[in-house]
Amino acid sequence: MSVAKILLDELSFTVRRARTGDVDEIVALLRDDDLGASRESEDLGPYASAFRQIDSDANHFLAVIESENGELAGTMHLTLLPGLSRNAATRLQIEAVRVARSARGTGLGTAMFEWAHDFGRERGARLVQLTTDKSRQDAHRFYRALGYSDSHEGFKLEL
Amino acid sequence: MSVAKILLDELSFTVRRARTGDVDEIVALLRDDDLGASRESEDLGPYASAFRQIDSDANHFLAVIESENGELAGTMHLTLLPGLSRNAATRLQIEAVRVARSARGTGLGTAMFEWAHDFGRERGARLVQLTTDKSRQDAHRFYRALGYSDSHEGFKLEL
Repeated sequence: MSVAKILLDELSFTVRRARTGDVDEIVALLRDDDLGASRESEDLGPYASAFRQIDSDANHFLAVIESENGELAGTMHLTLLPGLSRNAATRLQIEAVRVARSARGTGLGTAMFEWAHDFGRERGARLVQLTTDKSRQDAHRFYRALGYSDSHEGFKLEL
Repeated sequence: MSVAKILLDELSFTVRRARTGDVDEIVALLRDDDLGASRESEDLGPYASAFRQIDSDANHFLAVIESENGELAGTMHLTLLPGLSRNAATRLQIEAVRVARSARGTGLGTAMFEWAHDFGRERGARLVQLTTDKSRQDAHRFYRALGYSDSHEGFKLEL
């Protein structure tokens, strides 16, 4: 089921919830990236298991953005997070964003985020948050242009 | 039900899942903070509603740390997040951390994080992540001392 249409000049994209059959292609897109290349494995078993967890939780929305010919043009993983802080604000968290090489330079990235912000607002989120590796300078410019503030340090630790 | 004990020299603390009756005190602790003071409201209605959402979701664990005399000594909000990226790693996300003024300087903060990391490991998390305001220099030193890497920029946008 299509959730939304993204229209860019002469291009049209469909946004929908990912299905099991999309997982291979999403992982390929995650891997086609400077940092993702070394992080993602060839064994798809763990991804299928994680997909079932994501898909069974109504607070998660793993989005697939398809071009008119059915090709995967982008993906992003949205999660609605209730919390007590900031006057009990629900947050929309965005992870694992990718735009396919074939769709770059079309404005699709911006349109995906505008769609994601609407998705959050419609579900009561008052804040959207994401972290991005400090080496991704182009991404930083992109998020600032969208109005994001780089107000926080993002700490991570492998367990 | 107590989940864990934290023992520090002569001090003993209990870690447990927050209950409805804890919400007022947790919010008071969130407010007793340089940044939290202006962010948290006096009206507890929204917090009660958010607490019900948090409490009904098995992937969330709003932790209360109590001293031996039953006083609230600390709080942290843990969330287990399945995802496809990083070889389908489940992440443990930590938000809304506070140690009560009366319990600072005891090592409780470090012990709370060590407990949280165990909590994550036992539930399959391979990565723990958090963001903290860039102005919180003491917190940055604290997280680095725990082994965290400040590898990411944390972007936020109000919706």
